[in-house]
Amino acid sequence: MIRIALAAFAAAPAFVSAAFAETESGDAASPAPLTILVHGGAGAMARGKYTADEEAAFKAELTRALEAGYAVLEGGGAALDAVTAAVVLLEDSPLFNAGKGAVFTREGKNELDASIMDGDTLNAGAVAGVTRVKNPVKLARAVMEKSEHVMLIGDGAQRFAEEQELEFVSPKYFRTEKRWDAYRARLEAEKAAEKEADKAERQGRLAPQYSPPHAEKYGTVGAVALDAEGDLAAATSTGGMMMKRYGRVGDVPIIGAGVYANDASCAVSSTGWGEYFIRLSVAREICAQVEYQGKTVAAAADDVIHNRLENLGGDGGVIVVGPDGAHAMTFNSKGMFRGVMTAGAAPEVAIYGE
Amino acid sequence: MIRIALAAFAAAPAFVSAAFAETESGDAASPAPLTILVHGGAGAMARGKYTADEEAAFKAELTRALEAGYAVLEGGGAALDAVTAAVVLLEDSPLFNAGKGAVFTREGKNELDASIMDGDTLNAGAVAGVTRVKNPVKLARAVMEKSEHVMLIGDGAQRFAEEQELEFVSPKYFRTEKRWDAYRARLEAEKAAEKEADKAERQGRLAPQYSPPHAEKYGTVGAVALDAEGDLAAATSTGGMMMKRYGRVGDVPIIGAGVYANDASCAVSSTGWGEYFIRLSVAREICAQVEYQGKTVAAAADDVIHNRLENLGGDGGVIVVGPDGAHAMTFNSKGMFRGVMTAGAAPEVAIYGE
Repeated sequence: MIRIALAAFAAAPAFVSAAFAETESGDAASPAPLTILVHGGAGAMARGKYTADEEAAFKAELTRALEAGYAVLEGGGAALDAVTAAVVLLEDSPLFNAGKGAVFTREGKNELDASIMDGDTLNAGAVAGVTRVKNPVKLARAVMEKSEHVMLIGDGAQRFAEEQELEFVSPKYFRTEKRWDAYRARLEAEKAAEKEADKAERQGRLAPQYSPPHAEKYGTVGAVALDAEGDLAAATSTGGMMMKRYGRVGDVPIIGAGVYANDASCAVSSTGWGEYFIRLSVAREICAQVEYQGKTVAAAADDVIHNRLENLGGDGGVIVVGPDGAHAMTFNSKGMFRGVMTAGAAPEVAIYGE
Repeated sequence: MIRIALAAFAAAPAFVSAAFAETESGDAASPAPLTILVHGGAGAMARGKYTADEEAAFKAELTRALEAGYAVLEGGGAALDAVTAAVVLLEDSPLFNAGKGAVFTREGKNELDASIMDGDTLNAGAVAGVTRVKNPVKLARAVMEKSEHVMLIGDGAQRFAEEQELEFVSPKYFRTEKRWDAYRARLEAEKAAEKEADKAERQGRLAPQYSPPHAEKYGTVGAVALDAEGDLAAATSTGGMMMKRYGRVGDVPIIGAGVYANDASCAVSSTGWGEYFIRLSVAREICAQVEYQGKTVAAAADDVIHNRLENLGGDGGVIVVGPDGAHAMTFNSKGMFRGVMTAGAAPEVAIYGE
């Protein structure tokens, strides 16, 4: 199939008939544009939170991820390879809460989750609680392609990673000073709050409940893509929730919540308050509305994020792409690191809400 | 498939109008019958697999679970309490692959998963990889009600269980000789197959690939219920896959795959080849069809199990109940331990397919 941007079609009728004539002998369906979207996490990123240099750094990384993924698509590669390439780049970047740069658990460790799904076959892979695999999304992919399973967790998942000869790193690899400092600051804030609570109790009064800044808690990276064969794929990766404990697992490794792809409807990667995304099966919900209600991906994402998620009390966002190239980047938080690159257009990245 | 309720109501118009008149002054909607369904796992249970005594034992346990759950409903209790009571009973029973009687991992251990969901609030709880909590479904419920999270795994989940003062047991508690013997037999069969493969390799020929009996691999218990307030709930619990390794997690603790409840559509508990249930978000899929396509629970379950699951290559079953009391017990395997009890009727249990 020949893929050409719709804009090019509209602007050049002679070209259109020529292109149409060329493809008539091949695939009769309209060509959908190669498309890739990425996100680096949704949160309370109001303007002014970052310096101009920091903003530029984030945008540069998002752009690199888009270009890496798009290069795969442009070369005729599969959406699955495109999302893998993009997410690996974002995991390797220290700027996002995935792979290097992951947030710390309450015990001062990094525990990572990731998932991937192939819209063509509905094959999927997911891992949770891994600590030494350099690229968790590669492990999720290995689970999908080299095992009979969909989800592996903890030490067992890492044993499988060893057998698959994936790249291992020292746990320290994931650490960045920014996240470590944030962890230390949170520990001290909690200790101070505990002292305050003890003091209040001794004095017979109620202490203000310590509420950690909500916005700092989360962060995730992800990508969705549409390739030349018309196949969709999605991948998501995270360091999880800051200060998490009890082996808490969020939406990222939950197929249908943090990731979903089905050529019949759409591909989604989520980021936000994980518990709400699990309860609402956010990723699957969007595609179910596309499939069963015939909604556009934008309308479906809008309902799930701005209506259902919001009404339930959660926040976050999604990136979505459909089999026709229609796409959306929808979030109810103040901002979401995001970007899109489609055939014939330069990559577009953004941080804040409109 | 067994269909109940509609026949009972059709046969007793006087009963129906009496019930309707009673509630007219209260809730203006037609009263939905108190309903509970349970399952004890789907699999290749063809007639002849069990002795008459064994069949009677299974049926007795399923009946006890139904009656325990129904008693809660009849006393005005919540669907959440009814499914918890039923699943606890099935976990305590040594006959099913959940709690006591769980299958063994490749390393000869029991690792348990469970989940629960409240159709009224969409609150949910899930645990995976717990080894010493007597009733995993109680831990899933504690996660839902006493933590800010939805899913906890492994050691962390058990630390939370300790803090919640749930009942702990020695890991040996879960062991039954039947499961241990099956484990030993599988270990030996695999060793024999490995020897055979080595021998074949030395002789330059291909060895037959060892394929463990599919049917033995799985098993799960679960319950769904509809209470007097019109609320739905679902719960599922399992010992997981026999001989599992790598920290494999199946569908049971995946909200939307092994369990789902939403007062707007239906409540589902699943059992079967977990990987397929995850990829298809089976539980959520059924309720999405009810919600978005206006299908009956039976039609939705039929499409998801007999069409989608089967076409993808998976097997298993579900129990489903809707807010109007309509329910279904649908499976594409040879049998499924199952039962239903509704207002004004005796509990009905079954093992084999029609």
